[in-house]
Amino acid sequence: MVSIIERVGKALEPLMLVMGLVSPLATLPQLYKLFFSHSEHAAGLSLITWVLYAFIALLWTTYGLYHKNPTIWVGNCLGFIMYVGMVVGIIVLTGGTF
Amino acid sequence: MVSIIERVGKALEPLMLVMGLVSPLATLPQLYKLFFSHSEHAAGLSLITWVLYAFIALLWTTYGLYHKNPTIWVGNCLGFIMYVGMVVGIIVLTGGTF
Repeated sequence: MVSIIERVGKALEPLMLVMGLVSPLATLPQLYKLFFSHSEHAAGLSLITWVLYAFIALLWTTYGLYHKNPTIWVGNCLGFIMYVGMVVGIIVLTGGTF
Repeated sequence: MVSIIERVGKALEPLMLVMGLVSPLATLPQLYKLFFSHSEHAAGLSLITWVLYAFIALLWTTYGLYHKNPTIWVGNCLGFIMYVGMVVGIIVLTGGTF
């Protein structure tokens, strides 16, 4: 168990910037479903959840800029854009929900 | 602009562990909609998105444990649990989607 953690942890070290981009990019299929293929199911998406995701990504972006650390701010800035897209879609398509 | 970044960045420094918990906890309303109030809209949720969120949270948890850094692993471990909950709900309720 400990050796798995050490091996994975060490392997991830040079991949941090890439890892920070995966979650934002992973949001694309969710945006596609919301805006194009499954808009009639927008009510199943939580506005609270996506507003908070956007808010936290914005705070991390600010924190990363403050520390001049692109590993933090690049991914979070992209995340912020994606999550705001979700928020806009949910509001427009449902007219407001929780 | 620069002064806003500096003020917010400095203010966030002691709040990092708490900030790491906000996104996982923000997932609770989305889980509630999926499992209880809006299960009929499960097809609007992207399985790809939530599987990748879970996978990335697991990698960050491992990375945080490797560095013995609870600021990283606590929030991501909780996030992993939440996102796996989303994945399970989407699979059970839709029988499989993208």
